[in-house]
Amino acid sequence: MEIESLAKTNGEWLRGSGPEADIVISSRIRLARNLAAFPFPNRASNYQKTEIESLLRGKIQDLELDNKLEYLSLSSLSTLDRLFLVERQLISRELAGTEGPRGVALGPLETLSLMVNEEDHLRLQVMRSGFALTEAWQIINQVDDFLEKKVTYAFCEEFGYLTACPTNVGTGMRASVMLHLPALEFTKQLDKVFRALQRINLTHRGLYGEGSRFSGHFFQISNQVTLGKSEVAILGEIQSVIPQIIQYERQAREAWKSENSKVLQDRISRAYGTLRFATMMTSDETMELLSYVRLGIHLKMIEEVDIHTVNELFIQTQPAHLQKLLGANLDGEERNAARANFLRSRLRNSSDSNN
Amino acid sequence: MEIESLAKTNGEWLRGSGPEADIVISSRIRLARNLAAFPFPNRASNYQKTEIESLLRGKIQDLELDNKLEYLSLSSLSTLDRLFLVERQLISRELAGTEGPRGVALGPLETLSLMVNEEDHLRLQVMRSGFALTEAWQIINQVDDFLEKKVTYAFCEEFGYLTACPTNVGTGMRASVMLHLPALEFTKQLDKVFRALQRINLTHRGLYGEGSRFSGHFFQISNQVTLGKSEVAILGEIQSVIPQIIQYERQAREAWKSENSKVLQDRISRAYGTLRFATMMTSDETMELLSYVRLGIHLKMIEEVDIHTVNELFIQTQPAHLQKLLGANLDGEERNAARANFLRSRLRNSSDSNN
Repeated sequence: MEIESLAKTNGEWLRGSGPEADIVISSRIRLARNLAAFPFPNRASNYQKTEIESLLRGKIQDLELDNKLEYLSLSSLSTLDRLFLVERQLISRELAGTEGPRGVALGPLETLSLMVNEEDHLRLQVMRSGFALTEAWQIINQVDDFLEKKVTYAFCEEFGYLTACPTNVGTGMRASVMLHLPALEFTKQLDKVFRALQRINLTHRGLYGEGSRFSGHFFQISNQVTLGKSEVAILGEIQSVIPQIIQYERQAREAWKSENSKVLQDRISRAYGTLRFATMMTSDETMELLSYVRLGIHLKMIEEVDIHTVNELFIQTQPAHLQKLLGANLDGEERNAARANFLRSRLRNSSDSNN
Repeated sequence: MEIESLAKTNGEWLRGSGPEADIVISSRIRLARNLAAFPFPNRASNYQKTEIESLLRGKIQDLELDNKLEYLSLSSLSTLDRLFLVERQLISRELAGTEGPRGVALGPLETLSLMVNEEDHLRLQVMRSGFALTEAWQIINQVDDFLEKKVTYAFCEEFGYLTACPTNVGTGMRASVMLHLPALEFTKQLDKVFRALQRINLTHRGLYGEGSRFSGHFFQISNQVTLGKSEVAILGEIQSVIPQIIQYERQAREAWKSENSKVLQDRISRAYGTLRFATMMTSDETMELLSYVRLGIHLKMIEEVDIHTVNELFIQTQPAHLQKLLGANLDGEERNAARANFLRSRLRNSSDSNN
């Protein structure tokens, strides 16, 4: 697989299609699974990890899917390529950062990714654009069922699936929805929303998972509890609360637009003007400014640029994506200059074709 | 005289021509004169002020100039029109703000303006674009000589011309040069320059004279001493120091450009981007941003806009100018929206014709 060719597309997340795409970026489900015959990765020797990888890689290739999965061995990838896959939400920062035999099998549309020897032997992940947990669940459940026929998972009747970290025991499932909540953040209502989520055992994280900073007003909402409930019950809980958050954000946007229309319009237009003309631009500032432009498009407050371009720019201006697209290794300051240049050029083209 | 027609031009200051126009905006000389037969304006009755105005107005109309001066009675002007003349540097804030019979005679190119019943009975002012104190002096001296033949000025052999405020006694002359010093300000060298000026009895003020805030990195340097020296000696002192300040600013610009080229370029480009797309814009922010764009043009770091447009925008975005140009009375928030709109449209046109 050519990472360079991936760089030119958006992948599944940020495709910007799917239900409620103005607020829900993507829906993701992952399952943690381990082979009964081996110790968890943090206790396994490199030799055992090689065996695990070889075994799982074989079974993964037997999966009966429309398109074959492609397996990438992480140790054969450069640091830049690994970072690229993290930015694309196809592998975790943990898989990118650790040592030893490990890899990821990817589907052609980047909907499905299977990580081998991450925290658990196997991490299955399905991602869908928009609010589509049910569809994601159908796919991942099917893949999981298939693999379960081929290998013996570590499973006990009392708890369910056994995992390296106790917080995943049971279903081994984490279902998450990535939301774009600029209006709730700006009107300082997010804390209230997050506190309410906590009371029903849902947690929130930044764009790149646990410990990552909040960036571009993107937030992932996911379940905290994996034990004592069925997958369908957990999904049901998330699915019932997300529409409420969507509604809050919509209300906040409308209120903001009707009460502070001029301030909002100015903020959106300035964000666009800065993206269009700055000659140095950090990744963080890019996310923040693109976030306002994205909001502006959905509120029909900006016409110079289309949503497709903005969604592409969110991912293509990330450090590794930018370097892959430009075919060069760049240090921080060079990247800031290259990023600004890339934004200027892409936004100018988009403006020319929209006017 | 139609104030509306003035609004469409730049007047003499900010014409952007004249010697050293990249740094020296304009040179201005004013002379304070009083009629021996009347008390100073602050002690004169309204009846006496009417007499003074009538007398001086008649003499001013006798001036043998290429073009007749036009006399505007301030009390017949609206607040907006008075503010317009202040923004244009044709009258002082004091003349605009006080009551009673008072006025100004203006030359067609706005080089010459003669204020009647300001702090003194007569204030003569000549303004030239660029560094041109000698030329300004030649004109004002000629006008002053002519008037001195027609009226009896308050003058004593020991001190010279007598004025309402003791700080003007002697020559009654204030010579000032308006400088654009963004690099010295940004590199924090201005204080040093101003302290040095103070030691040789030169003072600095903001764009709109005494007590006005520093805006758009514009500074007026002028003489503090009017007593005990001839006009030519005072002019000589200013004329000898200005080239040094010009040289400091040029050095600061070059150093800034060579050491922090990327930061400077980014700042200039962002300023332009914000001016080009913001939808709300205060007068102060406009000055600050236009200042960076002006610097960018002179450093050949921006191509989207020409210096003529930027110089025009400095004056045309001032509150009264904007309202005169748009033919509407606007409150603060309406003005900020109208100003942003005006900037967007003018800069877009300039960009279209420069590309």
